[in-house]
Amino acid sequence: MSGDSIGKLFKVTNWGESHGPALGCVVEGCPSGLSLSEDDIQPFLDRRRPGQSQLVTQRKEGDKVRILSGVVDGKTTGTAISLMIENNNPRSKDYSEFAKLFRPSHADFTYQKKYGIRDVAGGGRSSARTTAANVAAGAIASKLLASQKIEIVSWVEAVGDIQSTMSPDKVTTALVESNPVRCPDSNVVNQMEEKILEVRKQGDTIGGVVRCVVRNMPLGLGEPLFDKLEADLAKAMMSINASKGFEIGSGFEGTKMHGSEHNDIFYKNEAGEVKTHTNYSGGVQGGISNGMDLDFKVAFKPVATLMQNQQTVDLEGNPIEYHGRGRHDPCVLPRAVPIVDAMTALVICDHWLRYRAYQS
Amino acid sequence: MSGDSIGKLFKVTNWGESHGPALGCVVEGCPSGLSLSEDDIQPFLDRRRPGQSQLVTQRKEGDKVRILSGVVDGKTTGTAISLMIENNNPRSKDYSEFAKLFRPSHADFTYQKKYGIRDVAGGGRSSARTTAANVAAGAIASKLLASQKIEIVSWVEAVGDIQSTMSPDKVTTALVESNPVRCPDSNVVNQMEEKILEVRKQGDTIGGVVRCVVRNMPLGLGEPLFDKLEADLAKAMMSINASKGFEIGSGFEGTKMHGSEHNDIFYKNEAGEVKTHTNYSGGVQGGISNGMDLDFKVAFKPVATLMQNQQTVDLEGNPIEYHGRGRHDPCVLPRAVPIVDAMTALVICDHWLRYRAYQS
Amino acid sequence: MSGDSIGKLFKVTNWGESHGPALGCVVEGCPSGLSLSEDDIQPFLDRRRPGQSQLVTQRKEGDKVRILSGVVDGKTTGTAISLMIENNNPRSKDYSEFAKLFRPSHADFTYQKKYGIRDVAGGGRSSARTTAANVAAGAIASKLLASQKIEIVSWVEAVGDIQSTMSPDKVTTALVESNPVRCPDSNVVNQMEEKILEVRKQGDTIGGVVRCVVRNMPLGLGEPLFDKLEADLAKAMMSINASKGFEIGSGFEGTKMHGSEHNDIFYKNEAGEVKTHTNYSGGVQGGISNGMDLDFKVAFKPVATLMQNQQTVDLEGNPIEYHGRGRHDPCVLPRAVPIVDAMTALVICDHWLRYRAYQS
Amino acid sequence: MSGDSIGKLFKVTNWGESHGPALGCVVEGCPSGLSLSEDDIQPFLDRRRPGQSQLVTQRKEGDKVRILSGVVDGKTTGTAISLMIENNNPRSKDYSEFAKLFRPSHADFTYQKKYGIRDVAGGGRSSARTTAANVAAGAIASKLLASQKIEIVSWVEAVGDIQSTMSPDKVTTALVESNPVRCPDSNVVNQMEEKILEVRKQGDTIGGVVRCVVRNMPLGLGEPLFDKLEADLAKAMMSINASKGFEIGSGFEGTKMHGSEHNDIFYKNEAGEVKTHTNYSGGVQGGISNGMDLDFKVAFKPVATLMQNQQTVDLEGNPIEYHGRGRHDPCVLPRAVPIVDAMTALVICDHWLRYRAYQS
Repeated sequence: MSGDSIGKLFKVTNWGESHGPALGCVVEGCPSGLSLSEDDIQPFLDRRRPGQSQLVTQRKEGDKVRILSGVVDGKTTGTAISLMIENNNPRSKDYSEFAKLFRPSHADFTYQKKYGIRDVAGGGRSSARTTAANVAAGAIASKLLASQKIEIVSWVEAVGDIQSTMSPDKVTTALVESNPVRCPDSNVVNQMEEKILEVRKQGDTIGGVVRCVVRNMPLGLGEPLFDKLEADLAKAMMSINASKGFEIGSGFEGTKMHGSEHNDIFYKNEAGEVKTHTNYSGGVQGGISNGMDLDFKVAFKPVATLMQNQQTVDLEGNPIEYHGRGRHDPCVLPRAVPIVDAMTALVICDHWLRYRAYQS
Repeated sequence: MSGDSIGKLFKVTNWGESHGPALGCVVEGCPSGLSLSEDDIQPFLDRRRPGQSQLVTQRKEGDKVRILSGVVDGKTTGTAISLMIENNNPRSKDYSEFAKLFRPSHADFTYQKKYGIRDVAGGGRSSARTTAANVAAGAIASKLLASQKIEIVSWVEAVGDIQSTMSPDKVTTALVESNPVRCPDSNVVNQMEEKILEVRKQGDTIGGVVRCVVRNMPLGLGEPLFDKLEADLAKAMMSINASKGFEIGSGFEGTKMHGSEHNDIFYKNEAGEVKTHTNYSGGVQGGISNGMDLDFKVAFKPVATLMQNQQTVDLEGNPIEYHGRGRHDPCVLPRAVPIVDAMTALVICDHWLRYRAYQS
Repeated sequence: MSGDSIGKLFKVTNWGESHGPALGCVVEGCPSGLSLSEDDIQPFLDRRRPGQSQLVTQRKEGDKVRILSGVVDGKTTGTAISLMIENNNPRSKDYSEFAKLFRPSHADFTYQKKYGIRDVAGGGRSSARTTAANVAAGAIASKLLASQKIEIVSWVEAVGDIQSTMSPDKVTTALVESNPVRCPDSNVVNQMEEKILEVRKQGDTIGGVVRCVVRNMPLGLGEPLFDKLEADLAKAMMSINASKGFEIGSGFEGTKMHGSEHNDIFYKNEAGEVKTHTNYSGGVQGGISNGMDLDFKVAFKPVATLMQNQQTVDLEGNPIEYHGRGRHDPCVLPRAVPIVDAMTALVICDHWLRYRAYQS
Repeated sequence: MSGDSIGKLFKVTNWGESHGPALGCVVEGCPSGLSLSEDDIQPFLDRRRPGQSQLVTQRKEGDKVRILSGVVDGKTTGTAISLMIENNNPRSKDYSEFAKLFRPSHADFTYQKKYGIRDVAGGGRSSARTTAANVAAGAIASKLLASQKIEIVSWVEAVGDIQSTMSPDKVTTALVESNPVRCPDSNVVNQMEEKILEVRKQGDTIGGVVRCVVRNMPLGLGEPLFDKLEADLAKAMMSINASKGFEIGSGFEGTKMHGSEHNDIFYKNEAGEVKTHTNYSGGVQGGISNGMDLDFKVAFKPVATLMQNQQTVDLEGNPIEYHGRGRHDPCVLPRAVPIVDAMTALVICDHWLRYRAYQS
């Protein structure tokens, strides 16, 4: 009820804080017999890890994952899989200054008011570091989905007002990984990189948009009322730190269209499958996947920690000035890509198991 | 697991189809001792009801709610409240033509493929008519929240590309209800109305955006990881039929901002409360309400049913032409307003009860 | 959270009170394509209905079930099935006397203290009448299980200290239904019947034990830790009104045995299947069904309503005398049999769907 | 869904196997501000630990608990608490013999059939060693309940056919802990001890009964339908390894009584509280606690591992002889006491938080 779990049949229970001794998660519902070792998970964590380029924070997080249960002789046993990532730099005294104030647009104020106490170091439970465990769980989900040929590809579509117009069909994981921005579009990637370096130099930050497509989606995933596939995706995406918006298919732009333009017209393709000419639906109709690619976007706000002086208040509400310290992301987008991938994998995997349960 | 329930402590289980004998829901978790009768619920249903103006469908849905359990002598007993709305026009033979084809951008195709069977009449379970039960449940939640002075106001902010720029602070329920568009902004409401009548004349449809604010929000609602308040709101909104996007606070536009502009700076107001000068956060920080107004938007696509000929396929995937019939909404926006209100009330009420459970 | 639902993949949400306008339930998770009509459910309700013999209450409860959703053209659609049973004799003024006191060993006192209000008529939500909806849901589960050849048989094994020693293997539904006690053992059924009539004449009541076996149980149902099959069965049985105990296999008697006697020795039968010579495990090992018959017992206390004077207290705790009225069961056991059947069907069906989800 | 979690508001997610690198659990829902350190938990684990006397297994399990999250500066933060216990003797090669056969009345056969794979070492996930994590979680629940003056006391009431007749009112934790049997009744404790040593000498095992009372129970815990307090207790108890039965209050013996004897008559005590003269209800009426002591019993079968030759089958179902090895419990009862305590604390704590959420 305290909301540390996501999923029903493929369920992840996340625990841990930024600067505690460790963080991790328990993954329930992975069928038995899947080959699994730390080597399957580590590359996913490495993609999320800070310090990969100048564009993101230079903090070093080793992020070595350990499988503590649910796997024997390299195979899943069907029981709960416990994943743990030890923190190399546990709680220190560095944060005493921050204990006395509420950083703007962070969770300091809300945690203090809700709980009467907060873990100051690195933001504690509110830190985006908790997403590392989700990425690890997502690696397992991804391996299951890969066995079904389902492919998830996310990329940076916008940084600030620099927008890629590349067709999703042309995006490959290789193109995404070909540059530190994780934007596959060579027309804009340099501008994006310059923009990030520019705000970084100013001690400032910038937001952006991640787009995700899921290919080879099976037909029939999602439930009629509240657990529509797009509803569960929206929840998963909006649970990522710094996300402020979600849209699927035509999204907010589609609200300006007429129905006669917007309707996705069905046809039978050469393989005899029913497909649609356009995909304004984003791969979901009536809450249920229609066999077209899933296609959705997630908005990420600019990171709240600046290397600038900012006004704020202390614990009593009195004005105080504060200046960000340490090594932070000028732009969270490149590192958000593997997180979006992971959360997508968790949702699809959960609904895939649900589908199996009910099929005749 | 089939996803007919939403909420954990305040839980709604929805059942029913468009043209079945009845539809309704079971509301669990309403505390005992609340005054409640059908008269508390009916006005909410009347707001959602079709046929209120030329802008929306002229279908007549009586939508008379009955309370079947959980209330004695005009007070809730703390046990499950069953609400039922009988359908006046249950399943008829009118739909035999539609049984043979898949209407574009409806759920016909996905339901048929997922279940191997579908209730053709009025879209069955995929019909937006199922939202009537949610509105009824939302009425109960709203009454509980009103006792806490929490106020929810939604309105139509855009129809197609006609956009209101009215400040949310100036919007009142009275203004929203002062015209059939449910747009409080006198600068644009006439244009919106004309636009809707125009597309209606063409047998076409148009989308738009609903905006919602929640005033007198208590501090501390929402949970750190997956059940962030905005994540649960996003899920609830994306579960509404025809919704394609959700954004909170600065949303997609905020991605273009620098952190130095975007951060909401804290200050102490005259009442000694900590508030923020701006509200790009939309009332939520770290997933938890910060005492500012909640402020979010929901995108609705243009309705899929057109009074025009459209190409589609039959059950075997062969081309067939189809023409919408009956009385349908040219624009779903005015009727979406009470649905957004209701879903918001359900989410807030659930988190308010969760808050109570854990407070020291 | 208010506990009106049972099951995860096959989920039943129960609503209603003894003397409200109606009671019922929502059944989620029934796969599509099952033939289903009221005629499939009504016989199950008829078995539970009062007034079937002198041994049970003479109240008339019509208990006509209506299917309000989830079925089209005689087939389930895969969506939520709403079942409703209208109460013929809704709330009357007969209960004003009982409003002033707490009947011993009823729920009057606890409901009043928990909720500050209670539905006096017929016990309201605490009435065993709420089990009618579970029996209706159980009918659907039974139909699904019958398609898997799974057979559930419950019977009265003891009334007071009169105990059947009939081997479970010899019990058939026909034998159970051959007499109003629902005891298949001709050696003791007459004594049981006399005992019940005797306590009835005295205005008294008597308890007893229901035993249940499940035949053709598939291997592998149940989960390792908390959702062991026997744990979910125990919860379901202990949720039946008036139940005070649950035991599986050797149960409480088995605690007196040595391990060397108690272990169920494996062997291969002629069909090449691994079975056990004895079944002290009751068909479950490590929480998971082993392919032997499930075999468990449920203890039912004597009914609390007596046709005798009894001491109790009024709302202020002052002594007051009270005398039961109306038509009540001198022994709940015969009518408990179809309820145990139903709850068993719900649990098995839920775990069967869970099994399907995870199978490779 | 794979059933590794118990509780709704106070939720425990258990992970780990007998001989894996570690085991543990995630505890959600502990309110913030509770003083908590490993020192609060360790004594509970020490009570459960093997090797405390000749009556139980001589295996050494260090069982040192670590708190990995959710606690800062000695106080809970309100976020997920991760507990880990490292296994000192992780998977070895000792178990290769057991990999080839199914031990009688263990989970070897059912796990192999359900999952197609099993963790042979020490029984893997089916080992009672997994209860260590539940005991650790129970320590946190107990600390919360102690702040409400709620006291849980469990003890061994029977070993084989040796039965204590001591009145529950006279049992104290000190008496329970005064001997290695954990039976507070000096009239039978020596016989019990001799019995256990006798079966141990024979390489055999023996079962028994644990009784539990909960004192200073608040009124009003439990829900009307499926989450009756006794239903959730039954589930929790039946999820403990080797348990075969649960009864509350009068239990199975009460089925032999007449209603006129069995009804618990209300009266007002000197403090002006309504109490009952007898407690055949076991502290629960209508599924809700009535303010009397909770009083229930759990049956434990004799341990399946014998130091004797036993017939069984190999993986192909062919006969094979097997002889238990290692150090095992001749009687699980003394160590079951702290496990029953812990599971009781988890259930009560969950329902206490649920009560808080709904109270007006």
